[in-house]
Amino acid sequence: MSGGPLEEEDVIDKVVVSVPASTANLGPGFDAFGLALEMRSVYTVEVLPSTERWNVHFEGMGADVLNEKGFKFVGEVMEYFERAESVHLPPVSINVHTGIPLTRGLGSSASAIVGLLSCFEVMMNTQFDTGKVLKYAIGIEGHPDNVTASLVGGFTIASSDKAEVAYMKVIPQNLKVVVTVPSSFLSTKKARACLPDMYARRDAVFNIGRASMLSACIFSGNYDLLSFALHDRMHQHYREKLVTGFKEVSRAADRAGAYGAFLSGAGPSIAALAAPTKADKVAKSMQKAMAELDPDAGTYVLDIAAEGVILQPGGENQQ
Amino acid sequence: MSGGPLEEEDVIDKVVVSVPASTANLGPGFDAFGLALEMRSVYTVEVLPSTERWNVHFEGMGADVLNEKGFKFVGEVMEYFERAESVHLPPVSINVHTGIPLTRGLGSSASAIVGLLSCFEVMMNTQFDTGKVLKYAIGIEGHPDNVTASLVGGFTIASSDKAEVAYMKVIPQNLKVVVTVPSSFLSTKKARACLPDMYARRDAVFNIGRASMLSACIFSGNYDLLSFALHDRMHQHYREKLVTGFKEVSRAADRAGAYGAFLSGAGPSIAALAAPTKADKVAKSMQKAMAELDPDAGTYVLDIAAEGVILQPGGENQQ
Repeated sequence: MSGGPLEEEDVIDKVVVSVPASTANLGPGFDAFGLALEMRSVYTVEVLPSTERWNVHFEGMGADVLNEKGFKFVGEVMEYFERAESVHLPPVSINVHTGIPLTRGLGSSASAIVGLLSCFEVMMNTQFDTGKVLKYAIGIEGHPDNVTASLVGGFTIASSDKAEVAYMKVIPQNLKVVVTVPSSFLSTKKARACLPDMYARRDAVFNIGRASMLSACIFSGNYDLLSFALHDRMHQHYREKLVTGFKEVSRAADRAGAYGAFLSGAGPSIAALAAPTKADKVAKSMQKAMAELDPDAGTYVLDIAAEGVILQPGGENQQ
Repeated sequence: MSGGPLEEEDVIDKVVVSVPASTANLGPGFDAFGLALEMRSVYTVEVLPSTERWNVHFEGMGADVLNEKGFKFVGEVMEYFERAESVHLPPVSINVHTGIPLTRGLGSSASAIVGLLSCFEVMMNTQFDTGKVLKYAIGIEGHPDNVTASLVGGFTIASSDKAEVAYMKVIPQNLKVVVTVPSSFLSTKKARACLPDMYARRDAVFNIGRASMLSACIFSGNYDLLSFALHDRMHQHYREKLVTGFKEVSRAADRAGAYGAFLSGAGPSIAALAAPTKADKVAKSMQKAMAELDPDAGTYVLDIAAEGVILQPGGENQQ
């Protein structure tokens, strides 16, 4: 079905997909690791009569901000898709029910890119080429970690360079993610600007060792060294000063028996990995530590999303 | 049996251990990855009457050089062990049958450190504390990759900092290692001196992604992305100019169907990972490419050593 522009009658009228949030980096896996979280947004894209103009409406978390500022972002994703595919999208009505907090390091923008591209791909091509959607999503987002996890689910290792992108996925067993979400934003741009351009060899070696070990822990299901493996020297230290309570909340997670805590993506959310039996205790401890600094912060115990994008009933899927 | 100096009658009279060679780095896993190879040296340490002085004798590969220069090295390992354990070794006769080419990037010095320490540990403490031997070995060698693989076998990820050292091990399945060993030496010191002190963030990120993926491939036994995962930006590019035939032999390995080739440790040996059915063809292709540049080079198809140090019959092990 791919290749060449489709006739108008090939376009699917309505597509509904749900997309998970994600946490990225997980300490040492800077710009490489992603973990999909059972906290989803739902994208509904419906073809309008050809005389109408496209529109987008947001409901749920952050809807106020998004209804004011989200239009441009959605337009950019549409344009990227049209350019990459050499197609013209018909006018569409886009409805987004957001279940993912905005600009908190939980991959909300990555999930939006993945959600929109997935809808357009199914709508125009009636199929779902994961590799293609991934490539486009990285083209827009600039780095592969969150988009890969949102797209395919589970724990992902992604590596891209100009020519190619590849990923591996596994569904971690016996693991919950506890996330403390602060009440304030942190722009990813600002969080990236505080990082050095150059790193000492010993710090790079440190992260190579720990990230590889973290990968081995999760792919093997052996968590004996998971705590040891969660340490980082590439980004957290530099970003700490931008993040309220990172030290306090991390220590609270450790004390309550988490494997370890880390900055979720570029922050400001703080995430911890914990055994399912310990997750509630870890959450209470993290929430308590954060409440003293940011009374409006919230802490959530989340399942890992085994699946990424899910095509929902309600969309007129022809397949 | 550990803790405090032993009485003389607790000392075991004779210990024999075999120790595998190892390749390190495997491309992106710089100073972290090791892989033990079925190519072994055998260390025999025997207590002498208290009136005699310790001595060491080498046989096998590189024996000429070692009988001239090896005494100092062995003495340093003995002194390190004595200092670390607060013991005095009795006078011993040390016989080494070396089956590992010297200074070729196959971990000969790491295997010697591990072999000697293992003998001393069994001799003085009648037990084998792997963690302790590993810590001492890293203390002498300076980095953990080769010593960990030689000590415990298999594929290893090791990470150490001042306070702690930890490793994970897995025995890779359906994998052979093909190694082209050039006729000339390369000092590890020289190979390390040509590396930059600082790395661009994108290069560190590149290696974090690929090394984590390589770790995932080997721990999961899924080799679909093994070729992709073997790429490196931390050391091989800088060391190429010191190594005869790296490009030519790597390409020959790729052409013959290897997963990929890499500099073995700091070089100058060039190693490739290959499926068992392809290993002979890969070896022929690598050997042919190298023969034009270095007619005295040799190429070997090696099994991965599932075990590291093996206590051999012939030693009077009291356990």
